[in-house]
Amino acid sequence: MASTEEDWKAKVARKQASLQAKVPKEWRLPESITSLLKLPLAEHPNRLIDLDIPRRSGLLSERELQITEKYTVRSLLIALRSGEISAVEVTTAFCKRACVAGQLTNCLTETYYDEALSRARELDLARERGDALGPLHGLPISLKDSFQIAGSEATIGYVSYLDRKSEENSALVDLLLQQGAILYVKTNVPQTMMTADSENNIFGRTLNPHNTLLTAGGSTGGEGALVAFRGSILGVGTDVAGSIRIPALCDGLYGFKPTTSRVPYGGQARAGDAGNSFFLAAAGPLANDLEGIADWMEVVIGARPARFDAAALDVPWRQLQPKQQLRIGVLEPDPFFPLQPPVQRTLHEAVARLQSQGHTLVTLRADKTRIAEATVVSWAMFGLMSDGFARLRASGEPFIQSLQAGGALASKLAQQAIPRPQYDSSMTDLQRLAAVTVHRDALKESWRKLWNLHNLDVVIAPAAQCTAPLHDTFSLPAYTVLLNCLDYPACVIPFGQGSRDKDGQPFVVKPEQFCPEYDVDAADGAPCVIQVFANRMQDEECLRAAKVIDACLKG
Amino acid sequence: MASTEEDWKAKVARKQASLQAKVPKEWRLPESITSLLKLPLAEHPNRLIDLDIPRRSGLLSERELQITEKYTVRSLLIALRSGEISAVEVTTAFCKRACVAGQLTNCLTETYYDEALSRARELDLARERGDALGPLHGLPISLKDSFQIAGSEATIGYVSYLDRKSEENSALVDLLLQQGAILYVKTNVPQTMMTADSENNIFGRTLNPHNTLLTAGGSTGGEGALVAFRGSILGVGTDVAGSIRIPALCDGLYGFKPTTSRVPYGGQARAGDAGNSFFLAAAGPLANDLEGIADWMEVVIGARPARFDAAALDVPWRQLQPKQQLRIGVLEPDPFFPLQPPVQRTLHEAVARLQSQGHTLVTLRADKTRIAEATVVSWAMFGLMSDGFARLRASGEPFIQSLQAGGALASKLAQQAIPRPQYDSSMTDLQRLAAVTVHRDALKESWRKLWNLHNLDVVIAPAAQCTAPLHDTFSLPAYTVLLNCLDYPACVIPFGQGSRDKDGQPFVVKPEQFCPEYDVDAADGAPCVIQVFANRMQDEECLRAAKVIDACLKG
Repeated sequence: MASTEEDWKAKVARKQASLQAKVPKEWRLPESITSLLKLPLAEHPNRLIDLDIPRRSGLLSERELQITEKYTVRSLLIALRSGEISAVEVTTAFCKRACVAGQLTNCLTETYYDEALSRARELDLARERGDALGPLHGLPISLKDSFQIAGSEATIGYVSYLDRKSEENSALVDLLLQQGAILYVKTNVPQTMMTADSENNIFGRTLNPHNTLLTAGGSTGGEGALVAFRGSILGVGTDVAGSIRIPALCDGLYGFKPTTSRVPYGGQARAGDAGNSFFLAAAGPLANDLEGIADWMEVVIGARPARFDAAALDVPWRQLQPKQQLRIGVLEPDPFFPLQPPVQRTLHEAVARLQSQGHTLVTLRADKTRIAEATVVSWAMFGLMSDGFARLRASGEPFIQSLQAGGALASKLAQQAIPRPQYDSSMTDLQRLAAVTVHRDALKESWRKLWNLHNLDVVIAPAAQCTAPLHDTFSLPAYTVLLNCLDYPACVIPFGQGSRDKDGQPFVVKPEQFCPEYDVDAADGAPCVIQVFANRMQDEECLRAAKVIDACLKG
Repeated sequence: MASTEEDWKAKVARKQASLQAKVPKEWRLPESITSLLKLPLAEHPNRLIDLDIPRRSGLLSERELQITEKYTVRSLLIALRSGEISAVEVTTAFCKRACVAGQLTNCLTETYYDEALSRARELDLARERGDALGPLHGLPISLKDSFQIAGSEATIGYVSYLDRKSEENSALVDLLLQQGAILYVKTNVPQTMMTADSENNIFGRTLNPHNTLLTAGGSTGGEGALVAFRGSILGVGTDVAGSIRIPALCDGLYGFKPTTSRVPYGGQARAGDAGNSFFLAAAGPLANDLEGIADWMEVVIGARPARFDAAALDVPWRQLQPKQQLRIGVLEPDPFFPLQPPVQRTLHEAVARLQSQGHTLVTLRADKTRIAEATVVSWAMFGLMSDGFARLRASGEPFIQSLQAGGALASKLAQQAIPRPQYDSSMTDLQRLAAVTVHRDALKESWRKLWNLHNLDVVIAPAAQCTAPLHDTFSLPAYTVLLNCLDYPACVIPFGQGSRDKDGQPFVVKPEQFCPEYDVDAADGAPCVIQVFANRMQDEECLRAAKVIDACLKG
């Protein structure tokens, strides 16, 4: 029986009330803060980070502000291990700050404040008793809503998933708990998780804390906003087309998409049917510091993911020797996906700095890198995966706007003169899958030859054509999905920001090209990034090079 | 336009003539040898190995007999490296002996005697010049026909593939050549490569050199016969349901199926369409010594397969510490797949010997290991893969008998009370694929829990219900396909042989059970084996344990 509009709205209202009830009164933002803001937030350029709301709100103590602002993942772990700061203090600080972030940016879905504090108390006692501590002892970690925590919901924004409690923890949840982490919040995603705008009919729209006019990105958009707001020191997302890296680029964070099956992905809540595993997503971290991302990867792989998830590869983390002089490919932009001025400028600047430090840079021409083709192939794959629209129809809830915009982009993509898989309407969907796989394999082979030919350590590339665009205008994620299509590890590194002064030149998009509208005022101050990627399974090499490149760019 | 019977027979006759023309006159078996044999060979129990035909034929010199009989892979490589034996001598010896094997067992497809000798001369010169030598310097390696060598054919027994020259080398071919190997023959396979009898309408039927009444196994059956006859010191096959391990068990060899994507599989000639890569095959070695198999794996992985094949995993070979005391699971037989007396007996004997040496053995009950379910799931997968029957129809050639028998077994399997994937005729084939994948993933998860629960190093198991059966009677390969379904590395170890005296007890098969007919006379003297397998990606642990177990059994 189809649900009526009343039905789904009533369900959402009940959910909203239960979420509200979990916000402690003493953590609610005072009127003095909300009066600083231009409402509705999504329609005005509120710069929440610049406004320094956690400090102004008076909700966090000076020590809590310090805990959430002054530590890297590593230094916080050291302080937790030594007892310099207790797990309860750290958890309280991040719960509070996350709660503030949630009230402003709509980044949260499920919260576990009481459970997290109770676990923190246990961990503090364990430390006092002298018990062996896990390598993540006491570290609060936030998770994308798609991770399941038994007994709570993982609706991923589907009304039809409301009231369905997770029966088991996701594999990574078990692993992180075993390593000593504290899980305290889950974060918002787009309807279907296949757009770059984290909006849905249950939790609403996540806003970018740098500027609430801009998208926070998606599908791990809640993490993007939360980590940028420092309501989390490290968050975990998933990425099948850019869903870790797009929030990283929109919110100015480090974000790492590993090779698939290195970090356990088992037990995700999914939009589509289970079993369509021919185009895999990867789970991976977002954080404010790169060292924290590398440390987290090492801990997770060190815990042997295959013990938690049969689909995870049982491959140790390799300890590499340092390498200071790199051979770096530079991805030339694809003609179908031109780069907006701030992205062009920062990429050129990055190349210049790397060259000045003696690295060897090799331009990879667009006709060799086949970026548009990879986008076509990936979209053909997504078209074959069951899509989750049935879940929307089941509840009667409407589509969000960015999903409709995405459909228009897909239609336009299908009309461009880009090589595409050889199939026609007479073929079964399994024959189409085979045809798309053949094309994808050909792309992988041509990239294999590129690596061999140029003997590259890594490639640097844009992560997108744009900085965080206005809501619902993100284009096709050509520069991120390339690395899903190839299944390469890829790391986003923040570098610079958009500038009204430097990026004001005219920017014209041709009719066959794809690009979000370029708004120089909206882009002013928006984070810029570069993307660093390595060959498949070279997650270690990717992060080693990312550290060298990051140090060069920040130096 | 469909071909007529005349067409395909004429094509085959031309091919046969061209193969014959490549057999040097001086390598042809004399009448004195053929008169020793009972003809037709396939219908009489000729024990070719016991007859010691290479020596009696007078075709091989004493030194050539020594080269082919007295060396392990490692000792031959040492002799080649030191110059104690030249590559030309080694290549000549194995070409001759392979040629003899081919005349008796029909194990060969393409031969490259001239090319191999010419390469051997080059390698000898390189050694004399003091050039750096590859780790496989001068080692002749035989390949299953499905590997492609540019400029020659890889028909895999399809008449419709005749006259189609390979345009590129398979990835592994390039890798082996780069490491210094010499490729000199390719070997026979079954029509469609989906049965255990290596027969097709081009090359005929491969016979078991232990006893020509028995199957040589398949689909890497040509290798099985050739290596057992010592016409090759190491052969490479592929395995999607047991195709390396079934010839190993039929012909009494070591055979290793790695985890998929560790050894490069790229560029195989295929029966079905490319792109159906949801149930992967693995390439791997067969040999007369286990050390040679382990050394070969280390060389291949050390050459970085991902440089040759984008689908290969870039994961180094791990050097493990020795481990002398093992925790070994013992796979209880599945009620649907009872073990014939020689298999039962040797497995019990192996368990007793291992226990007596202090290893810990843990019985894994059949209701936990889900062997029959894995067979059902694998057959459901194969049913979804395009099958190559279209290739048969294209030429007009008839099906071989074992393929028809295989169809009957599949029908019987579909009628048994075994849990199976949830799908029905209303579903698209892609939805079926998803349903089968969900079931397969569930099997992998239940096995993950078994490993964790029992903390096992490896499991020992039968490799089949039977020793090499009479032609065209091999049953469903339940005990091998289990490890393809789970994607685990698995090694076959020869151990003992069938015995009229010891294995004469009555053996009754129930109507719902699967089993080849048990013929105690045919099984007398037939090689027995055990199978050792490890968790996914633990190829190193699998071979480490196989060495310990092999030493215990041979000790």
